[in-house]
Amino acid sequence: MAQIPDSHRDLLDAEFATLGTVDDHGRPQLTELWFLAEDGTVRLSLNTSRQKTKNLQRNPAFSLLILDVANPHRYVELRGNAVLEPDPDYAFADKVVAKYGMDLRAMDQPGDSRVVVTLPADHVHTWG
Amino acid sequence: MAQIPDSHRDLLDAEFATLGTVDDHGRPQLTELWFLAEDGTVRLSLNTSRQKTKNLQRNPAFSLLILDVANPHRYVELRGNAVLEPDPDYAFADKVVAKYGMDLRAMDQPGDSRVVVTLPADHVHTWG
Repeated sequence: MAQIPDSHRDLLDAEFATLGTVDDHGRPQLTELWFLAEDGTVRLSLNTSRQKTKNLQRNPAFSLLILDVANPHRYVELRGNAVLEPDPDYAFADKVVAKYGMDLRAMDQPGDSRVVVTLPADHVHTWG
Repeated sequence: MAQIPDSHRDLLDAEFATLGTVDDHGRPQLTELWFLAEDGTVRLSLNTSRQKTKNLQRNPAFSLLILDVANPHRYVELRGNAVLEPDPDYAFADKVVAKYGMDLRAMDQPGDSRVVVTLPADHVHTWG
């Protein structure tokens, strides 16, 4: 797994990242989302009803860009293949809550479910 | 062509946007770049030696996300098919210079060329 160099590791504490996925027509989709970095690995809590989750279930290739919003010349892009695992009891979702102070359950509809999406980086690009 | 609603049109004056393209293995690539909006249409000046340009030449599907860096909950995403046209005399590149006060020629290598990339939006998503 590729590592983020020390010069850009602070971006793992950023509030938002931009996730790029590819839909079933081979078209890119971008969304801003919350993330949690643990030991240098980025993980997401995604609702399985969302298009980005369906995209990753079909094609796990991802690109994640974390921008320094205070200096948008500076960012890191991670690329690799996402690994999706069920989060039936919201154990991981609760960890995300700890970063953002929100209740992910309150954002979901009855019958929704969540997955833990781990984003191991095959390639790391830094800029700025 | 889909229009950006008035609530988010100010983002067309932002400094940077995130471009998502798809490579020849069906994997997403994200990059931060300069852009110029004229009459609500976003255009880019891209060097043809860059991977993102090659991706669009092969698969014109794009996603462009413009983030409000002062309030990263707020953004607009445009999706559609890019149209690439030569810019042999850097006529369009010079317009981009006017926004950023940079010399794009100085960023290119001998033998490089530039294209004007027009990003007509089939779909517009706003958030925040």
